[in-house]
Amino acid sequence: MRDKGQEAEIIRLLKAGAGHVSGQKLSRALGVTRTAVWKHIEALRKSGYTIEASPSKGYRLKGPLPFNGIEVSSLLETGFVGRELRFHNEVGSTNAEAFELARNGAVEGTVIMAEGQTNGKGRLGRRWESPAGHNIYLSIILRPPIPPEEAHWLTFVAAVAAAEAISEFCPARPVLKWPNDILINGRKAAGILLEMGSEPERVHFVVMGIGVNVNMTRPMFPEYIRNTATSVRETKGAEVDRRTLAGRLLSSVELWYKVYLAEGSVPILSEWKRYFGFEGKEIRVVSFGNTVKGVCLGVDDTGALLIREPGGAVKKIVAGDMEAASK
Amino acid sequence: MRDKGQEAEIIRLLKAGAGHVSGQKLSRALGVTRTAVWKHIEALRKSGYTIEASPSKGYRLKGPLPFNGIEVSSLLETGFVGRELRFHNEVGSTNAEAFELARNGAVEGTVIMAEGQTNGKGRLGRRWESPAGHNIYLSIILRPPIPPEEAHWLTFVAAVAAAEAISEFCPARPVLKWPNDILINGRKAAGILLEMGSEPERVHFVVMGIGVNVNMTRPMFPEYIRNTATSVRETKGAEVDRRTLAGRLLSSVELWYKVYLAEGSVPILSEWKRYFGFEGKEIRVVSFGNTVKGVCLGVDDTGALLIREPGGAVKKIVAGDMEAASK
Repeated sequence: MRDKGQEAEIIRLLKAGAGHVSGQKLSRALGVTRTAVWKHIEALRKSGYTIEASPSKGYRLKGPLPFNGIEVSSLLETGFVGRELRFHNEVGSTNAEAFELARNGAVEGTVIMAEGQTNGKGRLGRRWESPAGHNIYLSIILRPPIPPEEAHWLTFVAAVAAAEAISEFCPARPVLKWPNDILINGRKAAGILLEMGSEPERVHFVVMGIGVNVNMTRPMFPEYIRNTATSVRETKGAEVDRRTLAGRLLSSVELWYKVYLAEGSVPILSEWKRYFGFEGKEIRVVSFGNTVKGVCLGVDDTGALLIREPGGAVKKIVAGDMEAASK
Repeated sequence: MRDKGQEAEIIRLLKAGAGHVSGQKLSRALGVTRTAVWKHIEALRKSGYTIEASPSKGYRLKGPLPFNGIEVSSLLETGFVGRELRFHNEVGSTNAEAFELARNGAVEGTVIMAEGQTNGKGRLGRRWESPAGHNIYLSIILRPPIPPEEAHWLTFVAAVAAAEAISEFCPARPVLKWPNDILINGRKAAGILLEMGSEPERVHFVVMGIGVNVNMTRPMFPEYIRNTATSVRETKGAEVDRRTLAGRLLSSVELWYKVYLAEGSVPILSEWKRYFGFEGKEIRVVSFGNTVKGVCLGVDDTGALLIREPGGAVKKIVAGDMEAASK
């Protein structure tokens, strides 16, 4: 078994040490043999760190820091979200793994994060493109004491949290599309997939999946989404530090989740509306196979979308996909 | 791998054969060697069958038939419920196993049934006593195209289905307690646990768990439920054929599930009310830690319980536990 705690401690000491840190010093600090230290160093190299070893001077951390669990954990400012963090280089779907863990009793706040997903999932059974090396894919296990019909508010929590975190890294203001896509300059930069396990009367757990296109560049997107997807980097014009963004994202989720538990949906919806970008605009919504067109009147206090049709009738949409109407 | 289909076919041939059926005849009918036949016979003995073997005459089925997957399957009259049936001598919880299978794509109608559960579950995290040898414990995977807030209607579907199936085997009419306990002579004879996996907008799957106390006698119940639990046998005064009851239960679930999908909640609720035994009676309901007492006015068309308090105010209860008020 790898001891992630000891590995993280070695990284902390190497970062603090500025220059070389001797194997002896590391072995004393950790209370393990120098051979054990060497094994940890090997494991850390596999996790993406460049660590120079000199027989006389010891170990030195070099080059850019990787995107991994140790780095994200070292930047965490949360109380419980991400305090239990599982980072994978590759996983089928972070939501699927989180669902399984939640079902088996994982504590609230447990986060599954992956460098890449082979079977990334979007809403309603769709695919979420998840190549390794550029983006953030994470799922957070929450255990809110609510009935299933309230769980859609956590979609709004996630949308607000993601919009706020992304806005710190992006010159263009993120815009929310109902119910929970995050757009930058009119293109999708992040998505949310909320799944839950429940009885009819109460939620057992919620898995809040958030995928953010961080450093992908236009040619990297598959053809079928190249004109509708974007990344934070595409807007900023420079690479974004995923470790920092992931940390901010988890802090933001924790903050807004606590607000929801303490004060309910009102402050969440109010914040969500600040990022909603379609009020007063012509939109088209597909809901249960039907298409509704008209002027978006915003959302009501249940979170449903309101549309005024050309004839004047106002339609309330509880589930579906909306788009800006093509001219 | 055991071939359950071939085992079932051997049982069918032995039942049809009245007397002995030769190993040669069985091997021809199945298209396998006589050694393979013998192996199947051994497996069938382990599944509870008593099979006599005579070197000259062949095999003969003797004694009472066991309660197992082959027997339940042979009595099925359903279109899809139980057509995929997994029977276990012992399982942690049929709901937990069904949930896992559903998550991994099991077809609608898949049924998990067990002779005993080591970790039988009731509503809201409670325990369901599940000794082997006397009762029915089963879970049905359903995939209704509904949002999570409609899923509670499947609790009503299950309650109606169980009440109807049980009533065929029981001289006393089963009585439903809101939302979904089945009582006989005022004591709990069956319970329902509905769990689901979903997105906020749509249910991915529902696991409908039904536990029926069939042949337990009073001394078999643990002390803590001895005065509140009963079984079909306790009322009937004679042992009940679990195979037949399980088959009727699955048919009844399929019937009422189809009615719900085709016609919605109205006919379900109407049937449910025929079995509800507390209208006009003094009841006590514990809901989210609060106790409400008063006269039960029945349920409204959303399935919520209505109580008129002594002061005259009518309370609507959406989740909780009700009891007849103690005198």
